[in-house]
Amino acid sequence: MELRIRVLFTSICQTDLTYWRSQDEAHRIFPRIFGHEASGVVESVGEGVSGLEIGDHVVPIFNDECGKCVYCNSSMTNLCEKFRVDTTKSTMASDGKCRFSTEEGKPIFHFLNTSTFSEYTVVDSACVVKIDHEASLKKMSLLSCGVSTGVGAVWNTADLEEGSTVAGFDLGAVGLAVVEGARVRGASRIIGVDINSDKQIRGEAIGITDFINPKDLDMPVHQGWGLTVLLGVHPSPRLLPLHPMELFDGRRIVASVFGDFKGKSQLPQFAYHCTKGVVKLEEFITHEMPFSKINDAMQLLLDGKSLRCVLHL
Amino acid sequence: MELRIRVLFTSICQTDLTYWRSQDEAHRIFPRIFGHEASGVVESVGEGVSGLEIGDHVVPIFNDECGKCVYCNSSMTNLCEKFRVDTTKSTMASDGKCRFSTEEGKPIFHFLNTSTFSEYTVVDSACVVKIDHEASLKKMSLLSCGVSTGVGAVWNTADLEEGSTVAGFDLGAVGLAVVEGARVRGASRIIGVDINSDKQIRGEAIGITDFINPKDLDMPVHQGWGLTVLLGVHPSPRLLPLHPMELFDGRRIVASVFGDFKGKSQLPQFAYHCTKGVVKLEEFITHEMPFSKINDAMQLLLDGKSLRCVLHL
Repeated sequence: MELRIRVLFTSICQTDLTYWRSQDEAHRIFPRIFGHEASGVVESVGEGVSGLEIGDHVVPIFNDECGKCVYCNSSMTNLCEKFRVDTTKSTMASDGKCRFSTEEGKPIFHFLNTSTFSEYTVVDSACVVKIDHEASLKKMSLLSCGVSTGVGAVWNTADLEEGSTVAGFDLGAVGLAVVEGARVRGASRIIGVDINSDKQIRGEAIGITDFINPKDLDMPVHQGWGLTVLLGVHPSPRLLPLHPMELFDGRRIVASVFGDFKGKSQLPQFAYHCTKGVVKLEEFITHEMPFSKINDAMQLLLDGKSLRCVLHL
Repeated sequence: MELRIRVLFTSICQTDLTYWRSQDEAHRIFPRIFGHEASGVVESVGEGVSGLEIGDHVVPIFNDECGKCVYCNSSMTNLCEKFRVDTTKSTMASDGKCRFSTEEGKPIFHFLNTSTFSEYTVVDSACVVKIDHEASLKKMSLLSCGVSTGVGAVWNTADLEEGSTVAGFDLGAVGLAVVEGARVRGASRIIGVDINSDKQIRGEAIGITDFINPKDLDMPVHQGWGLTVLLGVHPSPRLLPLHPMELFDGRRIVASVFGDFKGKSQLPQFAYHCTKGVVKLEEFITHEMPFSKINDAMQLLLDGKSLRCVLHL
């Protein structure tokens, strides 16, 4: 049920950096191949795989869709009981072994079901989405995580109504994907919020109508209604500083993984919107480099200087 | 904009007891007239009041509806900016004074905009709902708080779909009103949850199909979807023991006040359902006493022996 993929493009998400640098014992799993945003070509197909062939253009997804479990058969969730998102998982689910090894035969561990910082990777077929040959594989690599997470949070999780007001907090790639998703849905006002005022310009290029630096303001918060969607990983053990009575004035807080997209069944349609220019991906690619420069690309992201640096393999 | 109401029936909610016994400095407001579940007859009408006349049958509501503010004009909330639910508020909003006094002329303070443990009370017209003369005022008193909160949480906040599974936690009056609301909406399974197994019988009389005492079990929790609606007051300063990642598997937590009913515009329709027997109120009245026995009625509630003891004035 596995595929070997020749990775052609991969980019770096903050989540790769978070777990690469994690001091948490459960995450000290090395050597390990990080990377989960990518695109490539199917190089070989394992037994039992259907619907995917050698030469297919594909995007790996860390949030799999087996299509058979109670969750995959429900419209209420995009979780799948086959894999789940588990950053401590470091081997293939089928046999608990690694598909990578050193020249000496020692295992090199997996990350997020995908491990795309590699010329070739092996993934379960539930973690692979086929993409139309007409689409730009370079741009499609962004759909593996960040852009899908942000746009999906607006389209699927919040199911934003036209004319609504949206605030995107933290104008990195995910926050700007929220802005892009809100723009496409016809939000009347899109407020970018970031403690770095330099991000206003990039936000305006994508579609924010207002910019707020929380350091400059002591803002009141809207009462009566309002939905907060949490995105991304929260490696800190700190709990939400939320008293139950704070929920009584109608504000809601939810979270979603991968923008609530069911990867295999819904991502192809989203990819189609992207290739048609409904959702604009080009603004998210701020840098491109050969794969050999991955350390430079990581530094750009750490310094807050890039949204996505796409690495060419 | 005020009305004087002759109270005919009043019952006791745990919230009265919570703030009567509160050691919190902001709640040490005595002498004070508690009580917020009641029904009665309009005895006199102040200047500026429209739509209510002497002799009208009415139910006071702690969660007012002024009908004019941005919140009242939105379908997204039942909060009103005129009063809000504030258990520390102890005077009338219009002039900051009390409508009750001792024989010596010292103020007796208000509670939750209603203060119904009294032969007569004065309330703002935004806190009064007119009830059809055909309805039983004794039963209608339950609509002021507990039953509306529980049924409304199912009908309005959760907007339960037919065939769903519901769990009502804590089978007091509000929890059983959740059960009743779920029964009327056609829930396929209604699980009563209480640490006192004696409550199973009462739960079954209203409609639970299963009973769970958490002390007997180490239950797994459903993943992927599920909505928790918090009801009632939470006077403890303790925060929710919730990590942000716990929201990522699709379970949601929200809260509602007064079952998300807009009091003046939606409660008459709910009262109609009750008078027609769609929602059964009689099971909630476990005791009746003259008002002079209010201390006995409070003790019954403290001991967990009554759902609602209706006091006759």
